[in-house]
Amino acid sequence: MAHKPYILVTNDDGIYAPGIYALWEAMTTLGEVTVVAPDTEKSAVGHAITIVDPIRTQPVNRRSGFQGFAVTGTPADCVKIAVRSLLDRKPDLIISGINAGANVGNNIIYSGTVSAATEGTMLGIPSIAVSLNSFQGEHWETAQKFARLFASQTLKRSIPVGTLLNVNIPDRAINDIRGIRPARQGQVYFKDRFEKREDPRGRVYYWMTGEIVDPSESEQDDSVLLHKGYVTVTPIHYQLTHESFLTELDSWELDD
Amino acid sequence: MAHKPYILVTNDDGIYAPGIYALWEAMTTLGEVTVVAPDTEKSAVGHAITIVDPIRTQPVNRRSGFQGFAVTGTPADCVKIAVRSLLDRKPDLIISGINAGANVGNNIIYSGTVSAATEGTMLGIPSIAVSLNSFQGEHWETAQKFARLFASQTLKRSIPVGTLLNVNIPDRAINDIRGIRPARQGQVYFKDRFEKREDPRGRVYYWMTGEIVDPSESEQDDSVLLHKGYVTVTPIHYQLTHESFLTELDSWELDD
Repeated sequence: MAHKPYILVTNDDGIYAPGIYALWEAMTTLGEVTVVAPDTEKSAVGHAITIVDPIRTQPVNRRSGFQGFAVTGTPADCVKIAVRSLLDRKPDLIISGINAGANVGNNIIYSGTVSAATEGTMLGIPSIAVSLNSFQGEHWETAQKFARLFASQTLKRSIPVGTLLNVNIPDRAINDIRGIRPARQGQVYFKDRFEKREDPRGRVYYWMTGEIVDPSESEQDDSVLLHKGYVTVTPIHYQLTHESFLTELDSWELDD
Repeated sequence: MAHKPYILVTNDDGIYAPGIYALWEAMTTLGEVTVVAPDTEKSAVGHAITIVDPIRTQPVNRRSGFQGFAVTGTPADCVKIAVRSLLDRKPDLIISGINAGANVGNNIIYSGTVSAATEGTMLGIPSIAVSLNSFQGEHWETAQKFARLFASQTLKRSIPVGTLLNVNIPDRAINDIRGIRPARQGQVYFKDRFEKREDPRGRVYYWMTGEIVDPSESEQDDSVLLHKGYVTVTPIHYQLTHESFLTELDSWELDD
């Protein structure tokens, strides 16, 4: 690529989260970077977009050079409004993260981090989601290294239309990473419970809580490889048709 | 099925929308029905779930017999809290809708109606999403007929694990329906623009707007068949791995 690549950085933890700062920093070594991200945390928003409310944007400029816009919307909103309105040209790459917490298995469906990359893909721009496997996040430098690697590879090569890369990184020192493995979306899920409480006025409310359950057995599953210390990369698409069952449906007595 | 089937009805337009009442009415002819749905409209929320805020539920009982709970959450929240807390037994079927407006092509990714059925599928319960191709919705009786047909077929047969049925119905009189067709998720998308305005205090805000664009060419695509007057049924799964690109990724210089 002859010109300096233009990179849009976004996330779902919000523009003031440590992970997006680490990602911005890593991307500045590769090209020109603009950040457009939610003004507050928008985790687990799935692929939500804002259609009923207006959206506001606020310029953000830090002394380090980190600059962009805080948006009163979801990660998918951020990508849409960045590409359609805020940026003066189309980015060469969209990268979302670095999320504090893995996005593997069923959690991919709920992930705001992944949804930003999905939105980028739908807009025809190569897109990557990057997550660090820890809610606290110690080893940002490890995540930075691999975010940079996948970003530079994606700028050099081509990803098929309608496909994004979902990258998950163990929260370990760089020397303790065992390697990189292409992986499948596995089986891990969050088994939720609802904890019932009463507020001071005697009205019932619930908190969603629960625990992670991992029935994954395959050595190719994202969560399995991640826990063994591998960086995983899963190509994700949003063509959701279950092809083999489509033909079986023909045999249903569909004409009443 | 020997016992009377137990059916959970939900939606994303909210518990007071006309479509959910029509769906409840259609389902009462097949089994015992409970409604658990958002207290207000939650369109385009994608697969959002509520993790930062508490969730409240409010019993709803109409004279007609329509009964259930209004939930201060997303469609996915409604299915989770219904199955995990509010219902006294596991439903045999979850059906979401009847949405005012089609859920075809890329719109499936943003759809709260589909996300409720996805959540049901993830909980191991056969699930269906039903949408009428009109924002006003005139022919609820047509949608009711096909909702009932797919519900009764689904109760009799088996859908593969991890798969839901996404049903779209033309807004036409029953006699004008040309038939039912298994269909693929097509290419139709919403090309969004952001309309910039100033509020009375001089602050900028944006409304998302735009128009539907349909590059679908295949005769098997959902939007194409729907516009021709067919009821479409698309089996949807949430295994998002792009299998063929997974092997190609091995050839990337991933070890830096």
